[in-house]
Amino acid sequence: MSGKLFVISGPSGVGKNTILNRVVESRDNVQYSVSATSRAMRPGEVDGKSYYFVTRGEFEAMLARNELLEYAEYVGNYYGTPLGPIETATGSGVDVVMDIDVVGALKIRQRVENAVLVFVAAPSFDAIRQRLAGRGDVSADVMQSRLERAKWEYSQAGQYDYIIVNDSVERATQELLAIMTAEKCKTMERIHFVKEEL
Amino acid sequence: MSGKLFVISGPSGVGKNTILNRVVESRDNVQYSVSATSRAMRPGEVDGKSYYFVTRGEFEAMLARNELLEYAEYVGNYYGTPLGPIETATGSGVDVVMDIDVVGALKIRQRVENAVLVFVAAPSFDAIRQRLAGRGDVSADVMQSRLERAKWEYSQAGQYDYIIVNDSVERATQELLAIMTAEKCKTMERIHFVKEEL
Repeated sequence: MSGKLFVISGPSGVGKNTILNRVVESRDNVQYSVSATSRAMRPGEVDGKSYYFVTRGEFEAMLARNELLEYAEYVGNYYGTPLGPIETATGSGVDVVMDIDVVGALKIRQRVENAVLVFVAAPSFDAIRQRLAGRGDVSADVMQSRLERAKWEYSQAGQYDYIIVNDSVERATQELLAIMTAEKCKTMERIHFVKEEL
Repeated sequence: MSGKLFVISGPSGVGKNTILNRVVESRDNVQYSVSATSRAMRPGEVDGKSYYFVTRGEFEAMLARNELLEYAEYVGNYYGTPLGPIETATGSGVDVVMDIDVVGALKIRQRVENAVLVFVAAPSFDAIRQRLAGRGDVSADVMQSRLERAKWEYSQAGQYDYIIVNDSVERATQELLAIMTAEKCKTMERIHFVKEEL
């Protein structure tokens, strides 16, 4: 049985990382997608785990070969999602999860037809505000721009397959695990089994 | 949040009842659909629990009022699925499960758009043969006709939303529970939550 790609988005501060860490820890056949980047490796980072560290030239060659599902440039560095490792994992029955913004998620959907898009919403906008504020010094301007970004992200949620409301990390994790299990039970994924018996 | 109707089919002897009993026992917000019948109540049966016991005239009046999702007549008695109790349950957030043959399931899909159809397959046809044989004296003719029926049912599995292979009751139960959870997370079911925040 092949694995699937699960693409998770949601506003900054909504708890996506906590949920994904729990999901990856709780199942053997799930792994993170590793991004490629042209930025320099930092102390403690591991090539192929934190990122695939490549030069700008190598990154541009990957782009030219259409090997990236999506990419973006931030402060002079490239970041992108290589398709190869995802295909290797899903081909051997391993599910792949990734946390990516809405723009990247919608690009991935165009390339990977059976990717499953999951939007993580906060219990309320107040909850987002509190979580962002709780992360330390945030100016009113930055806070405002993050909240506007979150509103825009919410406006795109209808394009996702599933919505999880993170009012409890435990429940949100269980819901994501249930989605991953259910997606493997979809008729398209299992009809071959029934056909073999006919 | 509203509940959903989960319609389970699969060959006789595949273990649907065991799976459904475990699902209903393991969650508070799940109940069985209760059929209506014109046959006489038997000792130990409870009206409104085993069946809704009605007269032939009452059953035909329900039919005339279009209150039954599907019905059939066996050995002179009517059996059918009343829509009302299902709507009451799902309207109050309770999921409803039912075990029904393929013909009935496909009729229900026509009336209840968001019904979820789950096909339970055996690990192999040999497994079906063994389970049917294990139930006691079965003539070769009856066995043959049941296996042919099972083959026909398998040929319709592609019309279902999900397929569960019952190679382990525990795993099959977990998969059905996961499907029920995931269905509640579908964007269509939750988009109202996100829209409220916009």
